[in-house]
Amino acid sequence: MSRLPAAISSPANPRLRAAAGLRERRAREHTGRTLIDGAREIGRALDAGVVLETVFVCESLCRSTACLGLLERIGPDDPRVVAVTPAAFVRVAFGDRAEGLVAVAITPPVALDVLDLPNDPLVVVLEGVEKPGNLGAILRSADGAGLDALVAADPRTDLYNPNAIRASLGTIFSMPLGAASAEGALAWLAGHGLRIVVARVDGSRLYTETDLAGPLAIVLGSEAEGLSAAWSGPGVETVRLPLLGTADSLNVSVAAGILFYEARRQRDLADTTKERR
Amino acid sequence: MSRLPAAISSPANPRLRAAAGLRERRAREHTGRTLIDGAREIGRALDAGVVLETVFVCESLCRSTACLGLLERIGPDDPRVVAVTPAAFVRVAFGDRAEGLVAVAITPPVALDVLDLPNDPLVVVLEGVEKPGNLGAILRSADGAGLDALVAADPRTDLYNPNAIRASLGTIFSMPLGAASAEGALAWLAGHGLRIVVARVDGSRLYTETDLAGPLAIVLGSEAEGLSAAWSGPGVETVRLPLLGTADSLNVSVAAGILFYEARRQRDLADTTKERR
Repeated sequence: MSRLPAAISSPANPRLRAAAGLRERRAREHTGRTLIDGAREIGRALDAGVVLETVFVCESLCRSTACLGLLERIGPDDPRVVAVTPAAFVRVAFGDRAEGLVAVAITPPVALDVLDLPNDPLVVVLEGVEKPGNLGAILRSADGAGLDALVAADPRTDLYNPNAIRASLGTIFSMPLGAASAEGALAWLAGHGLRIVVARVDGSRLYTETDLAGPLAIVLGSEAEGLSAAWSGPGVETVRLPLLGTADSLNVSVAAGILFYEARRQRDLADTTKERR
Repeated sequence: MSRLPAAISSPANPRLRAAAGLRERRAREHTGRTLIDGAREIGRALDAGVVLETVFVCESLCRSTACLGLLERIGPDDPRVVAVTPAAFVRVAFGDRAEGLVAVAITPPVALDVLDLPNDPLVVVLEGVEKPGNLGAILRSADGAGLDALVAADPRTDLYNPNAIRASLGTIFSMPLGAASAEGALAWLAGHGLRIVVARVDGSRLYTETDLAGPLAIVLGSEAEGLSAAWSGPGVETVRLPLLGTADSLNVSVAAGILFYEARRQRDLADTTKERR
C-alpha cells in the first residue's frame, strides 16, 4: 500500500505539464527552474544545497535501493513529494531513463566573480561545448580529477541542461561553476594569476611535454568550431595530443579527460618531489 | 543541373526502404550489410577497402567540400551512386545528420584468429560496452593513441552499428577488430604473450604507477555491469584511476582514452630511454 497521497494519474495534469516543459531551454530560462532525473543525481543536488521544488515519484518504478533511499531521505510526507502513476510519469520522464524519480529544482546561480579558488588551482574553461553528453562527461571527469572550477566562456552555454546534469551523474552540483564572455573569462584568469593552456590539434607542444602543475586553466573549444580568436593572444600557450592514426581529433570530452588526468599526474609527481626534498 | 540520373523521389522506394531498415540490428545481421553516414566516414571506408554497394546522394544537401570530393572520388557515373530527393532522403538519413550521403556497405568480417600483431602490441578489450557513442569514441581514441587492435570480448557486441561508425568518424575501418567470448579472448591474449591490465574502480594499483609498456591488453567493461568473472583470474592485473570528487566512476570512453594515452606516454618515454643508452 502506498504511503503517498493520491497519485497524479493524468498526463494532462498542469503541474506535470509545466515540469515536462522544462525539457525546453526557453522554459528553463523563463522560470529559473530545471529538471533532475534519477535518484543519485537528486541526492547529489541535495548534498550541494540545491533547492528542490517538487519531486515526482512513480512508486512502481522506484524499486532500487537508491530510489527508496532518496525517498526516505526527503521523507514521503514532505509536501514536495508528488506521486505519479506510470501512465502519467511518462509525460515528465526522459526516454527510457524512467528510474521513478524526476525533480524540479531552482537552477543554482552561476557567477564568475564569486568563485573562490584554492592555491595552485586547476580550472577548465569551455567555449562552445554545447552537447549535453559532452558537457556532462567533462563535468564528471573534472570531478574525478579534482578540478577546482569549470568556467563556460560563452554565456549562452546551457550548463544546467537536464541531459548534462544526468551525464554528469549529478557531479555538476558540487563543481564550482562560472560563466562569462571570452574576454571576461580571460580577465578573470589573469586576475587570479592562472597560466592559460589551450588544447588545439595544431598546438605547439605535446601536452606531456608541457608543465601542467601550478595555477592553470585548461581551455577547450567545440569540435566543430574550435576556439574564437580571443584564445590565441599573447600569454596563451597551446598544446596538442598526439594523433597517430587516421583521425585528426579526439572527442572533446575524451581530450578533456586526458588533459585533466595528465595535469593531476604531474601535480602528484610535483608534490612527491617536494616531500622528498 | 544535376549530373546524376533521375532521383528517387518516393520515401516508399523499395531500395531506400531496404537501406533504411539497416538502422535495425536484425536487418544488418540478416543481410550482412550496414549503413555509413557522412562523407568523411565513407571516405575512410573506401581507404580501408570496404565494399560499398550503394551510395545515396541528396545533391541539394551535398554542398560541403568533403561531400563533393567524395562524389568526385567515386565518380558520379558509378552505378552505385543513386540520387535521392530531399523528401525521400529523410527516410534513409539519421536524424539531423543529413550531410547528403549515406552508403550501404558490406559489413567487414571480424575475426580474432586472423589478427596480426606487431612487436610490443597495445590492444584494447571491451566486454559489454554496447552504447554506440561510447564504442565510437573508444575507437576514435584507439586510433589517435595508435593502438594495434580492438577486441570485443562478447560476440554479441554490435561493432558496425551505424551510430558507432559515425561516432568513430570512420576510424573503425582502419582499426584491426576481433570478437570472441571472454574465454576465447583470454586464450588469444595468452597465446600472444600480452599482459592483461583490467580497469576497475577498485583496482589494486593506480594506473600511473603500473607499467603500461610492452605487450599489453587494456580491458574495460560496461559502466553498469562491470566485467564478468573471467577477468578476475590469476595473471590479470587491476588498475584504477584516482577519483577525487563525489562520483565513483568516469565515463567508460573517457577512462579508455586516459589509459590509452598514459600507455602511449610510457611507451614513448621507454623508447627515448632506450635511444639514450
